[in-house]
Amino acid sequence: MEIKVAVAKVGKWATSESGDTLEMIERPHGGISFVLVDGQRSGRSAKAISNLVARKAISLLAEGVRDGAAARAAHDYLFTHKGGKVSATLNILSADLVSNTLVLSRNSHCPTIVLTPGGELVSLDEPSQPVGLRRGTKPQITELPLVSGTVVVIYTDGLETAGARSSRALDIPAAVRELTSRDDTSAQQLADSLLRQALALDDGRPHDDVSVLVLRVLDREGDGVRRMTVQLPI
Amino acid sequence: MEIKVAVAKVGKWATSESGDTLEMIERPHGGISFVLVDGQRSGRSAKAISNLVARKAISLLAEGVRDGAAARAAHDYLFTHKGGKVSATLNILSADLVSNTLVLSRNSHCPTIVLTPGGELVSLDEPSQPVGLRRGTKPQITELPLVSGTVVVIYTDGLETAGARSSRALDIPAAVRELTSRDDTSAQQLADSLLRQALALDDGRPHDDVSVLVLRVLDREGDGVRRMTVQLPI
Repeated sequence: MEIKVAVAKVGKWATSESGDTLEMIERPHGGISFVLVDGQRSGRSAKAISNLVARKAISLLAEGVRDGAAARAAHDYLFTHKGGKVSATLNILSADLVSNTLVLSRNSHCPTIVLTPGGELVSLDEPSQPVGLRRGTKPQITELPLVSGTVVVIYTDGLETAGARSSRALDIPAAVRELTSRDDTSAQQLADSLLRQALALDDGRPHDDVSVLVLRVLDREGDGVRRMTVQLPI
Repeated sequence: MEIKVAVAKVGKWATSESGDTLEMIERPHGGISFVLVDGQRSGRSAKAISNLVARKAISLLAEGVRDGAAARAAHDYLFTHKGGKVSATLNILSADLVSNTLVLSRNSHCPTIVLTPGGELVSLDEPSQPVGLRRGTKPQITELPLVSGTVVVIYTDGLETAGARSSRALDIPAAVRELTSRDDTSAQQLADSLLRQALALDDGRPHDDVSVLVLRVLDREGDGVRRMTVQLPI
């Protein structure tokens, strides 16, 4: 099998930097974890917050700490550091090669979209608190078997609030359904297309930071090579 | 401008995991850093070492620690932890958006290949110690202006020792020169092609872990979107 992950990420229009932070880390027992954080507000202050939360989660995951504990610790850290006055959303997506599962940890009002190998589209949307505000905040955790055909889509709220100024909005589950109706849509095409649709609703001037992460599990035998590419506008 | 980075990475034939670790982290003051570590020996023990060194470097870079200090700390940590008995090579490549430079930190016998915007091929090969063995080990640091046309190639020693059993060897500078003679060779094509040439010399059964990282600075105006893709065979 092969896991393909794609991330597309853009900052709010006319701000110097995105308040969203996406980091990736290898799991010491095998596998890989992605951490996506959206800091309160936008610009530099949001970036500082999301960087702090992501850093805490990543450093713990790198030491082999389990996802639920890393999410709790990231919350406790922000809560302690900022006295409960600053919030952030936090998603952790792990491909855990010990348990052979995908572990989805969610502290966000945004749902996580899952397409099962059977073609069912599931929206993981149990009530969930952001980190940083309330003592004892816990993540919503979902564990899925690591089987080919699975697609997971995680995003920050800029994706679902795109177009809000003009009362148009992106129906994300419908967009995912349509984009995955063809078997050969890559993770990158899916992430890019969702971002492009959101940007179009905001007339190319995003009113908030937008980040989209797509993970696909494929059953093809690859060449055994791990690959990563990064594109960074400066 | 735009920075494109590609990594291609494969483990030694018939081992369960690569002893090389590659991690990436966003720099809190702006920019991005890549850390590539090759742990002594191969397989699980090498992986534990490279993971430990990479984790230390990444966690410090994430806190805004400068590259040279992060490399020194990673050395001190391994040296203390393993009593000077275990070594690893360590490369840090940073695109620093505060100083507008590429910072290349090297604790490895493998040179770093740089193609300048003027078309000059430079091999950064000053004598350099791996981390972990000798008290006070320092990195070789090179700082280059962040200008379009620059290409940087970093690799672990599996790339240059490929084919050693059959006394064939890859002339890496010559291969980079040839591959970059066409303007449109992407970072990914360059990384993939170098890895493929090494694998061919080992008849498809790499005798060591091989990792290649290529960074290109391009002057084109992109769409302002940050992108990342990951391909992970499991």
